[in-house]
Amino acid sequence: MSMESTFTKEIIQDIRDLLESKQEDKLLERIGPIHAADLAMVVNELSIEEAKLLFEFVDAVKASEILVNMDEDDRDELVESFTAHELASYFIENLESDDAADVLGVLSDEKTEEVISHLDDVDHASDIVDLLQYKEGTAGSIMAKELVKVQENWTVSTTVREMRKQAENVENIYTIYVTDENDLLLGRLSLRRLLNTAVKTQISDIYKPGLEVVKTYTDVETVANKMKKYDFVAMPVVDEIGRLVGRITIDDVVDVITEEAEKDYQLASGISQNVDYSDNVWMLTRARLPWLLLGLLGGIFGAQIIGLYEADLRLYPEMAFFIPLIAAMGGNVGVQSSAIIVQGLASESFLSLEIFPKLKKEFMVALVNGLVCSIIILGYNLIFSESMNMSITVSIALLCVILFAGLFGTFIPLVLNKYKIDPALATGPFITTVNDILGLLIYFAIGRMMYA
Amino acid sequence: MSMESTFTKEIIQDIRDLLESKQEDKLLERIGPIHAADLAMVVNELSIEEAKLLFEFVDAVKASEILVNMDEDDRDELVESFTAHELASYFIENLESDDAADVLGVLSDEKTEEVISHLDDVDHASDIVDLLQYKEGTAGSIMAKELVKVQENWTVSTTVREMRKQAENVENIYTIYVTDENDLLLGRLSLRRLLNTAVKTQISDIYKPGLEVVKTYTDVETVANKMKKYDFVAMPVVDEIGRLVGRITIDDVVDVITEEAEKDYQLASGISQNVDYSDNVWMLTRARLPWLLLGLLGGIFGAQIIGLYEADLRLYPEMAFFIPLIAAMGGNVGVQSSAIIVQGLASESFLSLEIFPKLKKEFMVALVNGLVCSIIILGYNLIFSESMNMSITVSIALLCVILFAGLFGTFIPLVLNKYKIDPALATGPFITTVNDILGLLIYFAIGRMMYA
Repeated sequence: MSMESTFTKEIIQDIRDLLESKQEDKLLERIGPIHAADLAMVVNELSIEEAKLLFEFVDAVKASEILVNMDEDDRDELVESFTAHELASYFIENLESDDAADVLGVLSDEKTEEVISHLDDVDHASDIVDLLQYKEGTAGSIMAKELVKVQENWTVSTTVREMRKQAENVENIYTIYVTDENDLLLGRLSLRRLLNTAVKTQISDIYKPGLEVVKTYTDVETVANKMKKYDFVAMPVVDEIGRLVGRITIDDVVDVITEEAEKDYQLASGISQNVDYSDNVWMLTRARLPWLLLGLLGGIFGAQIIGLYEADLRLYPEMAFFIPLIAAMGGNVGVQSSAIIVQGLASESFLSLEIFPKLKKEFMVALVNGLVCSIIILGYNLIFSESMNMSITVSIALLCVILFAGLFGTFIPLVLNKYKIDPALATGPFITTVNDILGLLIYFAIGRMMYA
Repeated sequence: MSMESTFTKEIIQDIRDLLESKQEDKLLERIGPIHAADLAMVVNELSIEEAKLLFEFVDAVKASEILVNMDEDDRDELVESFTAHELASYFIENLESDDAADVLGVLSDEKTEEVISHLDDVDHASDIVDLLQYKEGTAGSIMAKELVKVQENWTVSTTVREMRKQAENVENIYTIYVTDENDLLLGRLSLRRLLNTAVKTQISDIYKPGLEVVKTYTDVETVANKMKKYDFVAMPVVDEIGRLVGRITIDDVVDVITEEAEKDYQLASGISQNVDYSDNVWMLTRARLPWLLLGLLGGIFGAQIIGLYEADLRLYPEMAFFIPLIAAMGGNVGVQSSAIIVQGLASESFLSLEIFPKLKKEFMVALVNGLVCSIIILGYNLIFSESMNMSITVSIALLCVILFAGLFGTFIPLVLNKYKIDPALATGPFITTVNDILGLLIYFAIGRMMYA
């Protein structure tokens, strides 16, 4: 009963061979039982020529489903290679307005206009044009215009008739929205209630007023957090004066949540753009090199700090032994504390954004961790090291570094967030690098005091 | 129209005051317009006594909605403080089977049994008992028993009548499942189709056969990836022989996706348990200390490696200057390359799990990054450093360390994954620590060759 859902190179090779030998019937038979989302993964791997041939063979509905499921980079490249007429008839006519706007996003204004001009359905065309206006990252940019809405002054029987019409264009209904005659959103109507009410009843008597909404300009992360928090599968989008203009469904929001989580994870790992393994060497390099250069700069500063203590090192080379320890621990603690703040900010779970109470709490955590680590390393040094001075230096420095790194890692993302800068930037290489440098300063300063 | 959705301390204080003075009417008025998910955030902050008082005042439907939206730790504590009878009548009677099983999960088998014995609705009780059997982390453990199913040999009119009955217990219908008389899942029925078909038609003539399913024992991450990939809002769960036993809805899966992403992020940041800022100092410390101890161990190894070169350091103390740079760069590159692999594994986007091609690709990326960084640091050293030996040592060592760290960071998560160990364990502190140590070994080995 279940269809295939994992892919092997063999399947891609099969499809390639059938494409090359232009065996249309055999190809259709081979891909018939495969879900569009899986076929999209295959098409990602094909050359432009192969992909275009495949799209010629399959019907337009399947073609458009495959297209929207493709990786964005591969899809954009492919979309640009089609003529405006092909785009309109193969894909855009069969896509919901939000997916259509998404696909067209990569094209120039002129070509987009040309594609739109080839659409027969004027309503569909104007829906897409509407959506293209909204700024990326806003609710307007990810909403769809397709939804089921009924008016409060209709009767149940009018409503059922109208709903049948509207449902033609809507893949999943989820919610029946109730508006006044000016499209002002009033509330929602339960399908159960509708089915159980006499046909002459007016909608105004049976709908449930009040509804959680978002504005067209609300940013998508806020939308995602709301839908996640309230367990919504769809959410209405209204304009400045409360008119219903579209709705956002959970599948779009799942993508937002995933991308957001991936982005934070990547930033924490020192990867500055949304790349994945399938991207080419050049893109992967470009996403990683900036953070490495930051680390390089940090290393140069570190070298200069140690350079200041060259004379001390000549006398007490054992001071060098614990440089990696001090640097690593500062980095680790900073990353931990910033990650906890970044995650709290991302899930909007802080009751207040006050900085001081958070520093106080982190101080306690860092103090416990710092004392444990310092005592362990003191024990180690008392047993294995001959220098009492160094033993004490390392332990005191380690405690200071852990305390400092914890506070710094807590403070920076909160401040960035206050100034509307993505706090996730503060995790990973940035915090590690800064804590490396400051850790060395603390270590050598304490060392000089102890040895003086 | 939109309800309040952000909370301030003032609102919590308001509610606390009203609870303390037992002003039931004013309290209900105050919390009336607040969504259960928001109230749950308030209740998280209340003491057990305050929370219990609040649950006495609100009606059972609202109480149960608040309870399921609470933080798990706070909720578990609260649940344990209620008697079996209170749990049954306040909460469990009004919850869908999956939420009920979730809430009861914290209790002992005896108390769970006692709660169940207080339920009047035998079907509901047996649904919950069924769900409690499934192992955590499997589809069975997150599915709900409530769904709408119809039999292929029914007519449209029977179906509509039966659906009305079934819909009483189902919050959102999403999909109408079609089974044979033995509950064997056959396919699904479109609501649109149902509404547009003559009442005497048999379901077997109008349903759509074949449906993507998961088994009760499928793990939740696989379910989440499937639903995300195919944009499903609900997915049927079948037993070993294909009988429909429940369904999983997208809201449950959104939680799985979020938790999974948070877990990977936390592991990459050196936090070993699912904690957030609201957890107490002790829990936060316990989640962070193990990774710090790992870092400490790494630092001790590092100290021993450098100790081997104490004589060299006395002669050439400038060798110490670049210790932090070498260690940091190894760590950074390792974290980057492992993050890309971990993310690819998590999203199941690799076409094959072969290790060698991935090492080849990473070698290219690391080579480019390594050459750029080595040349920059060579330029810096040629200008600012007096020692040609050291300049060359640092650049060669840096290139080697970056190449090695990239390959190691790629290799380890793939190997862990092969042996069914969570590859995310390999990111963050573990990879940083190992690369720190190996980086130092490479650096001093090359240094000794250059100075020899």
